[in-house]
Amino acid sequence: MKLLEKLCGIHAPSGEESTITYFLLDYIQKNQRNWKVKPIIHCGDGFQDNIIMVFGKHPRTAIFAHLDSIGFTVKYNNEIIKIGGPVNTTGISLVGEDSKGKIEGKIIKKDDKKKMFINFERVIDPGTSLTFKLDFRENEEFIQSCYLDNRLGVWNALEVAKTLENGIIVFSSWEEHGGGSTAYLGKFIYEKYNVKQALISDITWITDGIKHSKGCVISLRDSGIPRRSFVDKIIDISDKSRIPFQLEVEDSGGSDGNELQKSHFPWDWCFIGAPEDNVHSPNEKVHKKDIASMVSLYKILLKRL
Amino acid sequence: MKLLEKLCGIHAPSGEESTITYFLLDYIQKNQRNWKVKPIIHCGDGFQDNIIMVFGKHPRTAIFAHLDSIGFTVKYNNEIIKIGGPVNTTGISLVGEDSKGKIEGKIIKKDDKKKMFINFERVIDPGTSLTFKLDFRENEEFIQSCYLDNRLGVWNALEVAKTLENGIIVFSSWEEHGGGSTAYLGKFIYEKYNVKQALISDITWITDGIKHSKGCVISLRDSGIPRRSFVDKIIDISDKSRIPFQLEVEDSGGSDGNELQKSHFPWDWCFIGAPEDNVHSPNEKVHKKDIASMVSLYKILLKRL
Amino acid sequence: MKLLEKLCGIHAPSGEESTITYFLLDYIQKNQRNWKVKPIIHCGDGFQDNIIMVFGKHPRTAIFAHLDSIGFTVKYNNEIIKIGGPVNTTGISLVGEDSKGKIEGKIIKKDDKKKMFINFERVIDPGTSLTFKLDFRENEEFIQSCYLDNRLGVWNALEVAKTLENGIIVFSSWEEHGGGSTAYLGKFIYEKYNVKQALISDITWITDGIKHSKGCVISLRDSGIPRRSFVDKIIDISDKSRIPFQLEVEDSGGSDGNELQKSHFPWDWCFIGAPEDNVHSPNEKVHKKDIASMVSLYKILLKRL
Repeated sequence: MKLLEKLCGIHAPSGEESTITYFLLDYIQKNQRNWKVKPIIHCGDGFQDNIIMVFGKHPRTAIFAHLDSIGFTVKYNNEIIKIGGPVNTTGISLVGEDSKGKIEGKIIKKDDKKKMFINFERVIDPGTSLTFKLDFRENEEFIQSCYLDNRLGVWNALEVAKTLENGIIVFSSWEEHGGGSTAYLGKFIYEKYNVKQALISDITWITDGIKHSKGCVISLRDSGIPRRSFVDKIIDISDKSRIPFQLEVEDSGGSDGNELQKSHFPWDWCFIGAPEDNVHSPNEKVHKKDIASMVSLYKILLKRL
Repeated sequence: MKLLEKLCGIHAPSGEESTITYFLLDYIQKNQRNWKVKPIIHCGDGFQDNIIMVFGKHPRTAIFAHLDSIGFTVKYNNEIIKIGGPVNTTGISLVGEDSKGKIEGKIIKKDDKKKMFINFERVIDPGTSLTFKLDFRENEEFIQSCYLDNRLGVWNALEVAKTLENGIIVFSSWEEHGGGSTAYLGKFIYEKYNVKQALISDITWITDGIKHSKGCVISLRDSGIPRRSFVDKIIDISDKSRIPFQLEVEDSGGSDGNELQKSHFPWDWCFIGAPEDNVHSPNEKVHKKDIASMVSLYKILLKRL
Repeated sequence: MKLLEKLCGIHAPSGEESTITYFLLDYIQKNQRNWKVKPIIHCGDGFQDNIIMVFGKHPRTAIFAHLDSIGFTVKYNNEIIKIGGPVNTTGISLVGEDSKGKIEGKIIKKDDKKKMFINFERVIDPGTSLTFKLDFRENEEFIQSCYLDNRLGVWNALEVAKTLENGIIVFSSWEEHGGGSTAYLGKFIYEKYNVKQALISDITWITDGIKHSKGCVISLRDSGIPRRSFVDKIIDISDKSRIPFQLEVEDSGGSDGNELQKSHFPWDWCFIGAPEDNVHSPNEKVHKKDIASMVSLYKILLKRL
């Protein structure tokens, strides 16, 4: 879990993914010699801060994991506004850096709580982004940290990469704030590799119907409704695998799946990911059994789909 | 109207269009020998559950009719959530089927009416979709049924197909719940047939300005605003045809037209359809004169545009 | 400023851009002989009411300026509904034209101010569009008029055109009402000219952090978040230019930049424009120093980016 801890500590809110992109390209460079298949890497000019890895000669399914996190942007006089939908309780510690140096301060509220500020000793450059301060906690059962959403989805894809023989892994941007890369990454994959099955490697929620330790979640719908015949195929493979999993039915929330659905290509997609407590807070909490189930399910699905 | 009644009774909410797709492919197979021109059919792999029919060598205009209906998804413990925007009054009868068999029950509400449930004797599989129970009523003046929106739009396209010499008919998916197929179907048509004029064969609303029996509606705008010069051309042809029609101006509502407008191709589009009372309920009601006007208008427009 | 005044008086709300398109094509025809480089013009069939001008053999950056304005559509019995988000205070003068002739009247409200009407002596054809009546005011410091948003953005692009050696200028449609042309114009430019850097020539707001006469605004974010590395490059060039400018950080508002971001191509984009008071009203007000700064910044950026 050292790699996961490192990933959770990288400052890369929507629009500033390049830090985690460089980290991953370096990690891939160093580790791919130990992978079963060496992937073709598409990145750089024309791909912004995204990375596509293509494994084998006959990929049929692509894993999409978004790189970016939620966070805050500093406005004028240390007022802050949201990037995506972060929890913003008074007292949460934020970190960042501007032209004058490192920043660390707590969220405070003014004007009848209508405006948020960071409590810091000097005026921060407008436009500076801030993220939750990392406090990574691990015990026998749980991992707890900011940004398990979606550094755990990225980590899952890197685990699957180790033994992947045919398939595609996509690291995407802007998912937490309106999207903007998945459509063109999907276009590239569909046109060059004729792949149109997608699994969304992302983190979902503990709810009335979804419990810790009962297995990775396969989502039947959220705000988006995937094509049922594709989801049924996934459930059938998962059933036969005997790996524990849970089925989710929600009417809110969304993912890179929605962006694929609305794109100009006939993607079938399904959201598959471990559930977490304390969503979009510094204290996101995931059960280790659900992480193990997630990795196992992805390995089977990339083989059988 | 036997065909329309059959279409209204097919269970095919957004995401599960395949049932109506198979029905239509079978219908087309059996009936196209009686059509003036035998169309080229595009469907299957790469088209998900959609169907494109191309008539003649010089198509200039495409009719878009969405296949899917509104409905409900079963969550946990028979709680239900919406697919699209259905009326959800207590007592409405819903039907569906899960792994244990057929389902029929009424909508009930709990928790201060914040949550909806289906009243049924056993726990239904989460993810099961439910639709309104069919009660098709016909008299001399009116047709009344669930899902005239948009099975009447589909029926209209099939009527036009009988004598169509040059043109395209598209049956699309997901229109009631966020869209997701029209953009790529439009891409295919534009790139392969260089067609960029679209008529949206769908059902609209009785309002202060739109009355039963006064003719099919040509919409000048809803939440989307089509290019005025294209709409003016349509009004001009319709005026000369002497077929009765009504002009609609609304600031809400939307259709496959909006998805075409936001797509990567220069579509001109216009919504043309009969108006109904009791929108998105089991009791949608359309006047037969408006249906006749709709079919006649489409026939003329496909010739003259 | 005669040209700007003329542009502000053209009736061209979203969906009816053709009037300003013809005006501009005529203007370009007559004036391009005096420009440093004669552009290639893309317009007409396949481009709807949009215009693309390509200057030089090595364009690297495109300027996007939207042609359309906010306004109103007449419903039934002279009720009016919005096109985009116009200010709609009682008493504002609106103008337009229908089949029976010219229209001029003031906004009035009825039904507890829930409904808006235009006060006019006869019933106006439903679907007729209305725009603010022009009252162009100029003094030593300020320009004040309706529709500086975005006729000033268009005017800025025409100023830059005079000396532009390599670059693209795009005049787009529907920006004020849901978009619909920028995605496909961007597709054309990316595919034909391999250009993927965009500057959004549009007008922004006077706020707590943005003041009149302090220079053109470079926006770090609004509802959309552009890629930071691209914005940093722009700030760096602007800093070195010694032209005064201001940095904006907002969490609402949007532009053609959002449509480029969500499109199927890897656009880097940045919003750069003069700030105005009395946004979306007949009294939009911009400082002349900020206009001068806008033109100067665009000239430098088109050279150096």
